Amino acid sequence: MALLMDRAALAAFLASDFGQVAADFAVERADEAGVALRLLATERHLRPGGTVSGPSLFALADVAMYLAILSRIGPVALAVTTNCSIDFMRKPEAGRDVLAEARLLKLGRTLAVGDVLLFSEGKPDPVARAGLTYSIPPRG
Amino acid sequence: MALLMDRAALAAFLASDFGQVAADFAVERADEAGVALRLLATERHLRPGGTVSGPSLFALADVAMYLAILSRIGPVALAVTTNCSIDFMRKPEAGRDVLAEARLLKLGRTLAVGDVLLFSEGKPDPVARAGLTYSIPPRG
Amino acid sequence: MALLMDRAALAAFLASDFGQVAADFAVERADEAGVALRLLATERHLRPGGTVSGPSLFALADVAMYLAILSRIGPVALAVTTNCSIDFMRKPEAGRDVLAEARLLKLGRTLAVGDVLLFSEGKPDPVARAGLTYSIPPRG
Amino acid sequence: MALLMDRAALAAFLASDFGQVAADFAVERADEAGVALRLLATERHLRPGGTVSGPSLFALADVAMYLAILSRIGPVALAVTTNCSIDFMRKPEAGRDVLAEARLLKLGRTLAVGDVLLFSEGKPDPVARAGLTYSIPPRG
Repeated sequence: MALLMDRAALAAFLASDFGQVAADFAVERADEAGVALRLLATERHLRPGGTVSGPSLFALADVAMYLAILSRIGPVALAVTTNCSIDFMRKPEAGRDVLAEARLLKLGRTLAVGDVLLFSEGKPDPVARAGLTYSIPPRG
Repeated sequence: MALLMDRAALAAFLASDFGQVAADFAVERADEAGVALRLLATERHLRPGGTVSGPSLFALADVAMYLAILSRIGPVALAVTTNCSIDFMRKPEAGRDVLAEARLLKLGRTLAVGDVLLFSEGKPDPVARAGLTYSIPPRG
Repeated sequence: MALLMDRAALAAFLASDFGQVAADFAVERADEAGVALRLLATERHLRPGGTVSGPSLFALADVAMYLAILSRIGPVALAVTTNCSIDFMRKPEAGRDVLAEARLLKLGRTLAVGDVLLFSEGKPDPVARAGLTYSIPPRG
Repeated sequence: MALLMDRAALAAFLASDFGQVAADFAVERADEAGVALRLLATERHLRPGGTVSGPSLFALADVAMYLAILSRIGPVALAVTTNCSIDFMRKPEAGRDVLAEARLLKLGRTLAVGDVLLFSEGKPDPVARAGLTYSIPPRG
């Protein structure tokens, strides 16, 4: 399936439409296989003990899947998350960015489904995985 | 099952151990039925369109369940979320706090399981629901 | 919201449209609060060790939510499960039926969301809980 | 990580310890990447409309993950499913077996986490995906 938005287009969309959180993320890759997104981990993403917080990991997975959907359907602002099931498996290491690999498994008429693996940069074992469903507006 | 921490004890724990996020939340109630927690919704919890963001709702559900567990086992810092499945059902209204009702369904030797309903204050229909599992340290 | 199908109507629908599995279930109640459904546990629902199997509990939760939706929208055959997140919390006791309490939390234009608690008959603590999403056909 | 049980050992375990359901499944592969399991779809796995039923897909995902865990820890009967979040994405085609690809993402001291993709044989797009958590007995 053709890509309607590439890495640069997704990064520009993120900057223009997600002003307050765009600075947290960097789009690393967008291709047929999906989207890779980086959480630029800073002090405010941490929680006591120095690991990246659960809500920060959730946000990373959610934005990564959103961008994977937009890469296929274009800059449609109306896609909304309807379900996320996330497993936290290992503590992300402090001082490392977190990388999300999102892949789209279904792009239907009104629902899109995919999953995301999250890694501490430079580490082979995932820190979390998530399955997400988005409700998307019917397309012409 | 007896409560080891009441509303005031949970509020004090939140303030002392969760410095940076404690200001977002207010413990409304803690009793046999569970814990009610309020998200004091401010500008930084919103996203484009004016609704409370998904990560803010996730954080509210997660903290509410954490406090419901602590109310039964005491201030154990080592409980960690292992899974959260959350359904986003309605857009939270801008300008309203979000209230979480957490109930504990199982408190096992190493796992605690519960669920949470989230409401825009003053509205009868839930904006989200979540099921959460925590890994808890074995107790004496 | 008005009930379009009561206990007797749901039981008749189950018998006519779910021939091969209808004998496993009995509709106990259908009202504003939701639907209660009984799994008539027999030898073939058990697994080694004598507890009711996971797939049998899944099927019970799934059918209970399906009937809770139909009770509100009528006998629409086209509703399909899109997501189920189920927590298995305690072993169901052998020799006891399992009771499901399903409640509908959202009935939208194309999605219905609800949750289900499962109990071994006569026991106060739930053996499992599930959150389910159904895709439903748009209504007139 | 070394495999403690290969394809033949898993098939033998399934036959000896899961008598009543073993005939539904065939172990196709077991290696470092995970386990592939086939549901030998017959009349009793179908539901009205001729597609493979949700409980049958759930059972396939659950058994595939169970075998993926056993391949690493040996024939430990005490592993139990604690959570499964499953997305149903496409109707499985009647008259085709369903193939599960299970991969283990974490094998911890007391929890194992993995995910499973399910395919109608010969079709490229998955019919379902599941994330599963198992509670496993501490090992020596």
